[in-house]
Amino acid sequence: MALGMMCASMPSGAQAEKPVLSAQESDPVRMGWMQGFPPLKDRQLRFADGSFFEFPAMRWSVVHMSEFMPVVSVSRGLRAPDPLPYRLDPRIDVIAFRPTNADTDMTWEESLWQNYTDGIVILHQGRIVHERYFGALAADRRHAAMSVTKSLTGTLGAVLVAEGTLDENKRVADYIPELADSAFGDATVRQVLDMTTALQFSEDYADPKAEIWQYSAAGNPLPKPKGYAGPVGYHAALQTIKKGGVHGEAFGYKTPNADVMGWLVARASGKPVGELLAERVWRRIGMEQDAYCSVDELGTPFAGGGFNAGLRDMARFGELIRNQGRWRGEQILPARAIEDIARGGSKAAFARSDHPELPGWSYRDMWWHTANAHGAFAARGVHGQTIYIDPVAEMVIVRFASHPVAANSANDPTSLPAYEAVARHLMGRK
Amino acid sequence: MALGMMCASMPSGAQAEKPVLSAQESDPVRMGWMQGFPPLKDRQLRFADGSFFEFPAMRWSVVHMSEFMPVVSVSRGLRAPDPLPYRLDPRIDVIAFRPTNADTDMTWEESLWQNYTDGIVILHQGRIVHERYFGALAADRRHAAMSVTKSLTGTLGAVLVAEGTLDENKRVADYIPELADSAFGDATVRQVLDMTTALQFSEDYADPKAEIWQYSAAGNPLPKPKGYAGPVGYHAALQTIKKGGVHGEAFGYKTPNADVMGWLVARASGKPVGELLAERVWRRIGMEQDAYCSVDELGTPFAGGGFNAGLRDMARFGELIRNQGRWRGEQILPARAIEDIARGGSKAAFARSDHPELPGWSYRDMWWHTANAHGAFAARGVHGQTIYIDPVAEMVIVRFASHPVAANSANDPTSLPAYEAVARHLMGRK
Repeated sequence: MALGMMCASMPSGAQAEKPVLSAQESDPVRMGWMQGFPPLKDRQLRFADGSFFEFPAMRWSVVHMSEFMPVVSVSRGLRAPDPLPYRLDPRIDVIAFRPTNADTDMTWEESLWQNYTDGIVILHQGRIVHERYFGALAADRRHAAMSVTKSLTGTLGAVLVAEGTLDENKRVADYIPELADSAFGDATVRQVLDMTTALQFSEDYADPKAEIWQYSAAGNPLPKPKGYAGPVGYHAALQTIKKGGVHGEAFGYKTPNADVMGWLVARASGKPVGELLAERVWRRIGMEQDAYCSVDELGTPFAGGGFNAGLRDMARFGELIRNQGRWRGEQILPARAIEDIARGGSKAAFARSDHPELPGWSYRDMWWHTANAHGAFAARGVHGQTIYIDPVAEMVIVRFASHPVAANSANDPTSLPAYEAVARHLMGRK
Repeated sequence: MALGMMCASMPSGAQAEKPVLSAQESDPVRMGWMQGFPPLKDRQLRFADGSFFEFPAMRWSVVHMSEFMPVVSVSRGLRAPDPLPYRLDPRIDVIAFRPTNADTDMTWEESLWQNYTDGIVILHQGRIVHERYFGALAADRRHAAMSVTKSLTGTLGAVLVAEGTLDENKRVADYIPELADSAFGDATVRQVLDMTTALQFSEDYADPKAEIWQYSAAGNPLPKPKGYAGPVGYHAALQTIKKGGVHGEAFGYKTPNADVMGWLVARASGKPVGELLAERVWRRIGMEQDAYCSVDELGTPFAGGGFNAGLRDMARFGELIRNQGRWRGEQILPARAIEDIARGGSKAAFARSDHPELPGWSYRDMWWHTANAHGAFAARGVHGQTIYIDPVAEMVIVRFASHPVAANSANDPTSLPAYEAVARHLMGRK
């Protein structure tokens, strides 16, 4: 189902055989999706048949998710937003870099089109130095964050661990007895946070028997079809997942870990993950817009991939993380939690996973750690979503995108070196 | 279907036979709807089976509509909210009035419980003199406005008429050729705005053959069941409505008029009704929260009943209307449009309708006009939703409620005289 595709890696280059429209050709506003009263037949999109999430229509849908499925609000509160100061740098557009898969240079501006960027903002020392919107996105709209959601959930987990509300050495079943007989029962909170649980769970969409299909069906908010005998909702689906190996040995990027983390956060704090996120973050740092998160049939937020927010609000969140949890002089999140995120995870466990394209990387608290010299780390979601934090360059980049290929291996070659080139540029500025 | 019930009058006292929980007994937070991870079986609510909208569960759902159905956002923009000044008056709670159906007095405070109030705010000369929240509602949450939506749609219609974008004397088919063969084809824009169209359309929920059932099924955002042969979406449903009588003679309160008005507004302005509402109102008067509106399967906002907003934001809207379209010194909406609303409609046409309980009232631009000495007029929605404007007392009352009986005839006897008593009190204050 389409919902699962929002959070997991599709095989890279799955659509490589057929010619794919360019970013300019697939501009969702010019294509006229869902425009008119009523929209033209061939421009109508629906949730139920998955048409809303097929490229290129998906380029419109990622900015209109609440119009397709039920969502729970993540409130910004009612106070005035904290403006982000500006120091725009027009030279960024022409910064040249060498893509890791090419023999010639590309400019920053070219890379935005290349990667089907819907919106991008760069903060340097807390000031906006670059900001662009494309297609259906605008400053006052929200975009699907896909698996960047996992890093938000993981951040809440790290915060509760730092505060002692969650014990990272305890087993999941100690908090959630319902998971005792599942793969997660004897996994520790830490193993869930770092995704080193050993699960019999395939997210290979090319395999019709992959467990992700059942998982997505369970989480789909539409009423179950007649004769449906599977689990209903994320909580029920998680209980069916079987162990496959030994916990703690290898990183395995599996969405259910994030939903277990969301469940742990809810049980330990007494608040649904969206409400805790509002209370601890969204209401605290002068956000401009409420965020929202898709829910299953029982109202459970999709902690593995359902989050939607404004571009600049995601930048505020990134800046909060870059500053060890401080915002305008106030310690909003415990510094110890953010330091744990920024330190990175086990490179050995990561090396045992199926990510040869990311050598030297690691995964900690549901954040990805690059192997670059600046210790940059990132939240990452399919189709090009990212919050990229470079602590040394004091830089935060947030990108929303709608790349035709889900897997980030399709856009990393023209993204990661671009981010590093911008970091170098910003560090050299007077 | 439950969705239709949000906008139309149910037979008064339909649930009168069985004992009904009091407001205190049915407090949705204490009842624990959808609380817990996962919620208890008997506290789970679903959209598809209608359980989310049955009393008393409905008392929780009216504050959580987006968690059950897709919605389109009505943006407040990104600027700081305009604070509403306060001059709280604790004496309001003990104001006594005589309900029209009782022999003894009741206090204002008692009437709030009597009417299953979820939130109420009173503005006097633009200042908040009274503000209360109950149950699931809070200042930073949103509540279903039910048919108050119609008055928002009607206001946009009146604005476009005043500006000349819509000609009130033209026929609907001049703007929407698709409606030429329907009841609306030869109705004028004015007749739609005042609901004096003659439609073969029953909103009697006690009658399984009433046209409202087909209408609600068409607007339901869930995929249509197998074998469904009816219209899909509001636009299609409106085309099937047949004429029944002569237009312009009698007021007939029928929801499809509001959806035709929404369609007219969209066609004439080129913008969906939610987007125009954001552009003309929600972004202009310092709202605290985005509002949202439920949509059909094709993304069409339910202009007859799908709107949800914050209590104080509805008060801002009411205050905008009371001030002939001015907000903080700026003319936001044309005064002529608001004067047309405030003047009221044809009492003769209203007297020919089935509202003997509202003698001397009229209906204009989708607003209800009382027959009281102050020329008070109101937006009204089932289960007790209202924006009540008393121009002489310079008073605006907004109430969100979840009365077990849908029809306002169940709460008017303990509401309308209460509003008049508060108006007298405020006019007598120093």
